[in-house]
Amino acid sequence: MAPQLEPFFKQVDDLSGSFINRLRKAVAIPSISAQDENRNDVFKMADFLASELKALGAEVLQRPLGKQPGKEHLDLPPVVLARYGNDRDKRTILVYGHYDVQPALKEDGWATEPFELTVDNKGRMFGRGSTDDKGPVLGWLNVIEAHKKAGVDFPVNLLCCFEGMEEYGSEGLEEFIYSESKGFFKDADAVCISDNYWLGTEKPCLTYGLRGCNYYSVSVSGPAQDLHSGVFGGSAHEPMTDLVNVLSKLVDPQGNILIPGINDLVEPVTEEEKSLYTGISYTMENLHESLGSETGIHPTKERTLMARWRYPSLSIHGIEGAYSAPGAKTVIPAKVTGKFSIRTVPNMESSDVNKLVFDHIKSEFSKLDSKNTLDVWLQHDGKWWVASPKHWNFAAASKAVKQVFGVEPDMTREGGSIPITLTFEEATGKNVLLLPMGSSTDAAHSINEKLDKRNYIEGIKLLGAYLHYVAEEPATA
Amino acid sequence: MAPQLEPFFKQVDDLSGSFINRLRKAVAIPSISAQDENRNDVFKMADFLASELKALGAEVLQRPLGKQPGKEHLDLPPVVLARYGNDRDKRTILVYGHYDVQPALKEDGWATEPFELTVDNKGRMFGRGSTDDKGPVLGWLNVIEAHKKAGVDFPVNLLCCFEGMEEYGSEGLEEFIYSESKGFFKDADAVCISDNYWLGTEKPCLTYGLRGCNYYSVSVSGPAQDLHSGVFGGSAHEPMTDLVNVLSKLVDPQGNILIPGINDLVEPVTEEEKSLYTGISYTMENLHESLGSETGIHPTKERTLMARWRYPSLSIHGIEGAYSAPGAKTVIPAKVTGKFSIRTVPNMESSDVNKLVFDHIKSEFSKLDSKNTLDVWLQHDGKWWVASPKHWNFAAASKAVKQVFGVEPDMTREGGSIPITLTFEEATGKNVLLLPMGSSTDAAHSINEKLDKRNYIEGIKLLGAYLHYVAEEPATA
Repeated sequence: MAPQLEPFFKQVDDLSGSFINRLRKAVAIPSISAQDENRNDVFKMADFLASELKALGAEVLQRPLGKQPGKEHLDLPPVVLARYGNDRDKRTILVYGHYDVQPALKEDGWATEPFELTVDNKGRMFGRGSTDDKGPVLGWLNVIEAHKKAGVDFPVNLLCCFEGMEEYGSEGLEEFIYSESKGFFKDADAVCISDNYWLGTEKPCLTYGLRGCNYYSVSVSGPAQDLHSGVFGGSAHEPMTDLVNVLSKLVDPQGNILIPGINDLVEPVTEEEKSLYTGISYTMENLHESLGSETGIHPTKERTLMARWRYPSLSIHGIEGAYSAPGAKTVIPAKVTGKFSIRTVPNMESSDVNKLVFDHIKSEFSKLDSKNTLDVWLQHDGKWWVASPKHWNFAAASKAVKQVFGVEPDMTREGGSIPITLTFEEATGKNVLLLPMGSSTDAAHSINEKLDKRNYIEGIKLLGAYLHYVAEEPATA
Repeated sequence: MAPQLEPFFKQVDDLSGSFINRLRKAVAIPSISAQDENRNDVFKMADFLASELKALGAEVLQRPLGKQPGKEHLDLPPVVLARYGNDRDKRTILVYGHYDVQPALKEDGWATEPFELTVDNKGRMFGRGSTDDKGPVLGWLNVIEAHKKAGVDFPVNLLCCFEGMEEYGSEGLEEFIYSESKGFFKDADAVCISDNYWLGTEKPCLTYGLRGCNYYSVSVSGPAQDLHSGVFGGSAHEPMTDLVNVLSKLVDPQGNILIPGINDLVEPVTEEEKSLYTGISYTMENLHESLGSETGIHPTKERTLMARWRYPSLSIHGIEGAYSAPGAKTVIPAKVTGKFSIRTVPNMESSDVNKLVFDHIKSEFSKLDSKNTLDVWLQHDGKWWVASPKHWNFAAASKAVKQVFGVEPDMTREGGSIPITLTFEEATGKNVLLLPMGSSTDAAHSINEKLDKRNYIEGIKLLGAYLHYVAEEPATA
């Protein structure tokens, strides 16, 4: 063990009640970024963070981001920037988190008041934002406090970037990060983000990859207005018939993408990579538990994880313009728009994917010999991200996990996207590590969101230990 | 011309201003059956009709139908029953219409106030309910008044059945008709319904057939809750993928139903029937005008009319449970329910159709090799109806058209359903005639609903002349 860790760990244990109390105060502020009426609470939460950081001795700035696009009566919440330590002989670590939360109402089905941290006898701390992302954000503050109180020298310079719009698209943040990459963030040697989750409930992981996402719309239109199916059924080309046909040519029920050329863009699996999946702490039971059913496609955990992390997938999300209410309406919709997205992986370039998608859809539509009109376009895209897990940033985190939890972390990727990850990598040019605190059962975004006391307290030790190993890890790149 | 018609026609012309005024009063009552807050207006409209009928010398009854199912705080509007004449030596004609209307708001896009009858310089009388169905209902009252004022003997006994819930599913009416078939309706020799439209704008028609409708739901479910497509895309069977596949196997873009056996149930076309379509006053331009596009399937009017009237069709209406809003949401819906309907024709029996549909869908789903669960069921069905156009009821109406408009009527069917038609036929055992007053451009159910003055005034003459020819037509069946 790095010699300073013992007093730090002990101090964390001693302060655990106070740390939980800090989380309680934060959860009590309903900083819901998606609801206009809570915007003041989001600002209040920024003030809370800023004042706590200042009290700990950090330099703090609240940086405004201007008005909210499309809602010009609302100010965007500030980015809370903080610097703790300014020693040229130490590495500088930039950490990111967010202090806004998803909406929550007791009547949505919460067992407890969502904005009152409630700890049950299993040590589960229920409350909106407990795990996403107030627990991890406060984790960094708690690390500073425990060092101060234990009299342990802080091993790195810490830069904090805490935003207040993550649950509403991180409005304005991307430009901000790029502009600060030569400003407030310019000394950063590496980046650490704690805003994702363990793969299961027992074993920590370090996350080094995310899939990207290209989201498409495909519309078919024909008549000038909706038609009565009694009058026109059989004598007019129906947009819905055409759309359903086209959508059925995108992916098969086994998840195989049917768009020619897509699979050729995917980086082939090496034998070395294949072996990685066997050791991951994950089971088919974990999959079935999270699905709430046994409707997984693949028979083994290895193939399941590869399908999630390193192969593309295509999901059809729904259709706009068709009849979607309960009941029975005999309409022929005049224009229907299908929505689908492709999760992308190395080495799929968005522009290549777009071309293959557009060509395939137009070709399939032309086979239908319909007089309707088809249009297909990209709604948005976000690139996949894969970092080098051999970088000193990961090596340090790995040692910290071993130290705190006694196990080697799983090296994982995620199937979803955290677009800000790639932004930090591209803007700073530095290695980015995803170091989760919460577990797979934390129900972020759902009712009864929680953070286990163990994950919080041991997580604080993990974040602190990570900084100590960062300080002594030899450079890799 | 039947000798009494001349003074009757003249009297209709003389009273035309008063008849338009009667329609103005009726349109001014917003008798919207679908909106709870207008229920009093529906009752007010029943009172208006009853008092007008009484003033004309008819015996009138308002028959309650009890509470509205599912909305027990609301009384169903009454059926207004009337008898005018009780002469055993005359034929008795039962006429049906409805006095409720569709909702309408100026801000929906109406050019005029929807509940103020507004006559433009082309003689178009705009107002909600003008053509559907207050104009035709008042037509019968106007026929009585013109006979009285002209001193012309009324040629038949007239039974009126006017309901107030037609635009909301004719709640309670079917049972009522069956129970009155041996009561108030027992003397009826034939039935006449004026609640549909000419095929075009110039030539009247008599309608002797309607398609039926079997409405289906097919659901696919898998996971216990909606899933994140980043996390589970590629590793879980997606209900939407399966559903889109199954829906794509129901009908092709040329309107051909792909369910094996369905087409074998359809009565073959005879050479005699084929020749009927050529004479119908309808053009491909009419089709394109009503579509607002040139996306018709068939190259000729004959094939278009046959597709509409005498062949089945299958329309996919939409999907419940999938993402249907504008924008982009990366959800994997846990359960999706497709809605489609089949318009049925002779000799498709509902139970045979159901079996073929269920078998086909289950067979197609089993080919997908998905672990999801499929269910398919009938939401509702209504049978097709085809009457004999050689019955004296039709012969009389045909002579009346010739007399009033100087042309032979088109003998038409309709692609849609008017379920009460079949109910009257089955309950009374008598021939039912659909005798429309309005034209194809009247925009029933839409904004700017109208009835042309010509259609109203000549339509009153038509209804009256029909009763005179009914009186003298020899029996056919």
